[in-house]
Amino acid sequence: MKKVAPRILQGFMELEPREQLIFNNMLDTIRQTYQSFGFLPMDTATMEYSEVLFAKAGEEIGKQIYRFSKGDNDICLRYDQTVSLARFVASHANTLTFPFKRFQIGKVFRGERPQKGRFREFYQCDIDIVGNGELDLIYDAEVPAALYAALQKLDFGGFVINFSNRKLLSGLLESLGIQEKIKDVLRTVDKLDKIGAENVAKLLDDCNLTPQQTKQVLQFVQTSGTWQEVIAKLKSMGIENQTFQTGVLELEFVLENLVRFGVPEENFCINLSIVRGLDYYTGTVYETTISGKREIGSIAGGGRYEHLADAFSDKFLPASGMALGLTRLFDVLKSENLLSAKFDHTTTQTLVIPMNKQRQAYAISVANALRSHGVPTEVFFEDTKFKNKMSYANKSNIPYAIILGEDEEKNGTVALKNLKQFSQTTCTITQAVNQIIKND
Amino acid sequence: MKKVAPRILQGFMELEPREQLIFNNMLDTIRQTYQSFGFLPMDTATMEYSEVLFAKAGEEIGKQIYRFSKGDNDICLRYDQTVSLARFVASHANTLTFPFKRFQIGKVFRGERPQKGRFREFYQCDIDIVGNGELDLIYDAEVPAALYAALQKLDFGGFVINFSNRKLLSGLLESLGIQEKIKDVLRTVDKLDKIGAENVAKLLDDCNLTPQQTKQVLQFVQTSGTWQEVIAKLKSMGIENQTFQTGVLELEFVLENLVRFGVPEENFCINLSIVRGLDYYTGTVYETTISGKREIGSIAGGGRYEHLADAFSDKFLPASGMALGLTRLFDVLKSENLLSAKFDHTTTQTLVIPMNKQRQAYAISVANALRSHGVPTEVFFEDTKFKNKMSYANKSNIPYAIILGEDEEKNGTVALKNLKQFSQTTCTITQAVNQIIKND
Repeated sequence: MKKVAPRILQGFMELEPREQLIFNNMLDTIRQTYQSFGFLPMDTATMEYSEVLFAKAGEEIGKQIYRFSKGDNDICLRYDQTVSLARFVASHANTLTFPFKRFQIGKVFRGERPQKGRFREFYQCDIDIVGNGELDLIYDAEVPAALYAALQKLDFGGFVINFSNRKLLSGLLESLGIQEKIKDVLRTVDKLDKIGAENVAKLLDDCNLTPQQTKQVLQFVQTSGTWQEVIAKLKSMGIENQTFQTGVLELEFVLENLVRFGVPEENFCINLSIVRGLDYYTGTVYETTISGKREIGSIAGGGRYEHLADAFSDKFLPASGMALGLTRLFDVLKSENLLSAKFDHTTTQTLVIPMNKQRQAYAISVANALRSHGVPTEVFFEDTKFKNKMSYANKSNIPYAIILGEDEEKNGTVALKNLKQFSQTTCTITQAVNQIIKND
Repeated sequence: MKKVAPRILQGFMELEPREQLIFNNMLDTIRQTYQSFGFLPMDTATMEYSEVLFAKAGEEIGKQIYRFSKGDNDICLRYDQTVSLARFVASHANTLTFPFKRFQIGKVFRGERPQKGRFREFYQCDIDIVGNGELDLIYDAEVPAALYAALQKLDFGGFVINFSNRKLLSGLLESLGIQEKIKDVLRTVDKLDKIGAENVAKLLDDCNLTPQQTKQVLQFVQTSGTWQEVIAKLKSMGIENQTFQTGVLELEFVLENLVRFGVPEENFCINLSIVRGLDYYTGTVYETTISGKREIGSIAGGGRYEHLADAFSDKFLPASGMALGLTRLFDVLKSENLLSAKFDHTTTQTLVIPMNKQRQAYAISVANALRSHGVPTEVFFEDTKFKNKMSYANKSNIPYAIILGEDEEKNGTVALKNLKQFSQTTCTITQAVNQIIKND
């Protein structure tokens, strides 16, 4: 028979079971954290009508979309979970209870050129809160507070959530009389952390800013200090522009409340160069960097966007939300050796090993007893050398082995091995169950 | 702004949050059950090279595949999770620990004509055990035992796992001298539960069977009785064919062990008309029907397939596995009103309601205290009528509300409402936490 090479497409992460367990444990932790803030689950379709997707997606995303026809349908794979949220909220606005708080954890697809740290299929872990007509500003603090809680529980070390408010830069540019260049300037300023001040200055010149304007913009986005210091500096800049003033008050309110939610000051700061998706965010914006690894870029971010469902509905449905890209974060933590040991544990607690085929029936009854007490149990039924059976337990990182020979079956006992402590006892099934549960 | 209709593609299930919670609780139950049998998680890519997918997929599935090009790649969305398993095992055979037991719960895609109970995107919950060179027959009992355990915990009422062994019908047809018609006959016989004996007889005539052969085949697949009775009848049929004899012994061994695994006799039977995927299964086969709802067809099935990775590898990698289609099962249970109430509970335990904006900060500190004790808590920050806030708690099915006015904040207390018992007390934050935890 002609063989086909078992190849996998480039840019897709596929893990072996032990790593997958770590990944899943992290995913469960994120989900539980989101639920602890009252977010409810959604799980929208993986595909959308292209018409629906492009009604919200910008031009830039176009090339990355997986788009195809099936029958009469022009279809796209989702590139984020926000389009589906907008579609869902627009079509159910009359029956949903607002504010609508939902989380969604699922795969999204982007046909980017594969490169280190970029995946074509990756998990996004989203939370969003949607209001009907209005949405209190304090939710702009609650969402990153939930992000902080999730990242803290992922237990990989230090991280910083970098905050800004889109109204600050917009207001500044208005006050400088260069609002018609706003998109170019924002796109340029957003690169500060990546390419440095000198290169941003050159690009700002290319936007036809005067040297004086370039200097002012650069100085502004590099404003540094504790968040209170930056707020004080913003207030004392003497920029009278109304948009700017609103931005300062919003940012101050959001960060005051972030502190109330229990986010420590070492885990957030103001970074006025943060811009994010151009046509999307309208106020609060934030991105998260791993301490000492800024070059990796943002691992999670979000903000306020007032026009979620404008493409689909006449209703005003303002929202505040964020996304955490777990596939990329996992990949970074793995390659930097930062994955927390607390997620690296097998689910299987006991390997039951019948010495030979005659002991299979006894092995089943012992496994039944363990499972009925909630102990995840595997039976090694394959008839092979004892050495291979023990090696399976060790390779699979299973903490207990129960060995069943003729004597054990005759006496209704088991030989219980604690594989972490290299100890062994012969005892009844009940005693074995109790010992495994106790040490769990 | 021109609006686009927020349409969803036909044949895709999308649930509101409360239903999604039920669905997710069922999914978690299945996952925990699989893990209790020692299966480890996998999560393969949603897309495959078409060359890889079609190396395993039969012709019949071709029309249903979502296939497209992106750049130079000819790509398919996965239509099951077995192709990926075969690809993965073939390419990692030298490093994996065998027997390789994995579960995978994920979405698969089939572009079928949408009709009631058929979805184009649905969750499959798979378990498979792969051996290297050999795989003990007892795993053919363990896999459906895990299926039984999962369905039992889904708590929707009676179900029956219908067993057969492919060697029985093959052996019978060989003994009748009609092995060259085997595929047509198997395809026809498989329809017995759907179209009835009379129609099957007509179709068998079309296969050019003699009236006598048709009668023998029909009589055979309608053999009824308890599983022990059917085994006894099979043994006394006097069919000397070797394949047939092996099939009888395999089926008997599998069902004997199924009983040892604790599967009650009311939950399984022998049904000799069960065939399943023609080019795939080689021995044990089974399908599951809901008691009193046979017309719905099979909700889960599987069996033994000896040639998992033949398309990709020279290694002999026999496997035993099964798939449970949760999207379809959920849809059936929902429309038949059989969804278990035990899965219908919100995750949010408490809604904290500040009476007005001045109480937002106090509300945050109360919510922090509840969350730090593991109580999932939502704060209703939106400034609206008190009636609307209480209505939100009730609509969302949240069991407790904590109301915070000026007096409560001054005294460091809370007004705790038990919304199920319609009772209210004023107490400290700690007392409220304790009461909520106690009743949880």
